Amino acid sequence: MTDVVVAGAGTIGGLFAAHLARVADVGVLTRRDEHARTLSERGLRVSGRGDFTSRVTASTDPAELGDPRLVIVASKGGDLEALAASLEGSFPNATVMTVLNGLGAEEVVAAHGDWPILSAVTFMSGTRHDDAHVEYVLDTATWIGPFRGTTGEDASSAAQLIRSAGLEAEAFADLRPAQWSKLVFNATVNAVAALTGLPHDRHFAEGMLGNLVHDLVDEGKAVAAAVGVDLREDPWEMNMHATQRGHAHYPSMLEDVTARRPTEIELITGSLVRAAERAGIPAPLHSALYALVKAKEASYS
Amino acid sequence: MTDVVVAGAGTIGGLFAAHLARVADVGVLTRRDEHARTLSERGLRVSGRGDFTSRVTASTDPAELGDPRLVIVASKGGDLEALAASLEGSFPNATVMTVLNGLGAEEVVAAHGDWPILSAVTFMSGTRHDDAHVEYVLDTATWIGPFRGTTGEDASSAAQLIRSAGLEAEAFADLRPAQWSKLVFNATVNAVAALTGLPHDRHFAEGMLGNLVHDLVDEGKAVAAAVGVDLREDPWEMNMHATQRGHAHYPSMLEDVTARRPTEIELITGSLVRAAERAGIPAPLHSALYALVKAKEASYS
Repeated sequence: MTDVVVAGAGTIGGLFAAHLARVADVGVLTRRDEHARTLSERGLRVSGRGDFTSRVTASTDPAELGDPRLVIVASKGGDLEALAASLEGSFPNATVMTVLNGLGAEEVVAAHGDWPILSAVTFMSGTRHDDAHVEYVLDTATWIGPFRGTTGEDASSAAQLIRSAGLEAEAFADLRPAQWSKLVFNATVNAVAALTGLPHDRHFAEGMLGNLVHDLVDEGKAVAAAVGVDLREDPWEMNMHATQRGHAHYPSMLEDVTARRPTEIELITGSLVRAAERAGIPAPLHSALYALVKAKEASYS
Repeated sequence: MTDVVVAGAGTIGGLFAAHLARVADVGVLTRRDEHARTLSERGLRVSGRGDFTSRVTASTDPAELGDPRLVIVASKGGDLEALAASLEGSFPNATVMTVLNGLGAEEVVAAHGDWPILSAVTFMSGTRHDDAHVEYVLDTATWIGPFRGTTGEDASSAAQLIRSAGLEAEAFADLRPAQWSKLVFNATVNAVAALTGLPHDRHFAEGMLGNLVHDLVDEGKAVAAAVGVDLREDPWEMNMHATQRGHAHYPSMLEDVTARRPTEIELITGSLVRAAERAGIPAPLHSALYALVKAKEASYS
């Protein structure tokens, strides 16, 4: 019997699957048959902060992954709609937890089934080395809250399960203050990194670029205030803290544009700009970054 | 006897030198000895809109280039200070004409000698294939006006000399309306191209990026108005016109960041942002692009 299914086996999905497989039966839903075969045959290796290989059951077909009580959706933003559509009619006894960047993943999943839904954001990070090997880099927490048909207690039990697997997790009665803190942080740092080619280093905290980052954070805070969200953490403090670590982090959007892949700009900056429009307040700097990153994607072809 | 010296033998300098050498004795001041040797031995070839090779005298030493009546300074912005310093004490009978992007090249030259100075901007473009071969692509005009110790008539005679060599040129009693039109256009198009990787194509005239380009042009127009310049051409019309040509132009700043070279952001966007600051009006979008392109340069190391 499968306890947990992880849908989307990139870096974050891989870290969840490999850790949870130490305390539960884990199924992994992949996009490619070859990826599923590799995972089922070789297991999923974690290096970095961990050093172990977990057995998982992997398939491209939800019907082969049993009857889990928790489904963790951890795809890239661009893959979400197709993934959610593929879940339709499956996993009748599961709660679905979305762990994507930005805003709006919960609504996309909700449109494809009546599962209870938990909302999550994660600050852990890693590097995917191949289909069966992910390096665990930052052991920061995943934050979980209720979204539809769930309570703070459901969030707590999901957080407890994840902690029992050796990852950091925390439950909240309302995730939005945490989710929006990460949204404003991500919209700023990811877009600036993607456009400049800089990893998230000291340039983001000082001088001319530091001033721009500060202005972007201020603009994001004003949008949060306008939609009635009281931020849990100050994104500028998050930025200062992150740039004072020993090594510079490569934001996923910088990795995406370097590899000329579609980015998550729609779920991240796009969500922020649309929220500003609905609230009727200006967001000229984030709108500019939104247009520039979209144009960078257009330059691939 | 040398009639004209071209200082800086990149694309624009090369086009001036090769064309002028058909009607005058031309010296070329280069940075590298090898470049000077190649030019003196092989001449300077023009392809594209022209197809000829001109004899020039080239040297890294101004003392070897005679006593010209006109010195055309056509270096990249980043090379200007060193070039102007190297001219100090030379060419006592010359008028110096600067043909650089952005604003402020005239002042840099003026600080190194008391030559009469003409100010120019050029819209011609080309591609430098090697040290002795430049392709002439766009045959648009060079605009010339008085700057220090010169009159509209001096500008006219420089324009006439250039036209006699087969290039387009026009003289103005006051260059600033033309120079600022190009400044606002360049600050917008070059920085957006450098950050997105897009050549100057239809994306700049429509949709979300078109809106950003329009906002950037409006912000630039407001700076021009604040410093008392009545633009000669509407930079938005220049943008529309240029994006409707058959082929997309690669702005020099895009070529610079692709090759991980220093850009001309200081003379272009930097000049515009500093002018806005002195005039006490906001320029948040150009300030953002300024910080982003500077950060992109910082990412090279």
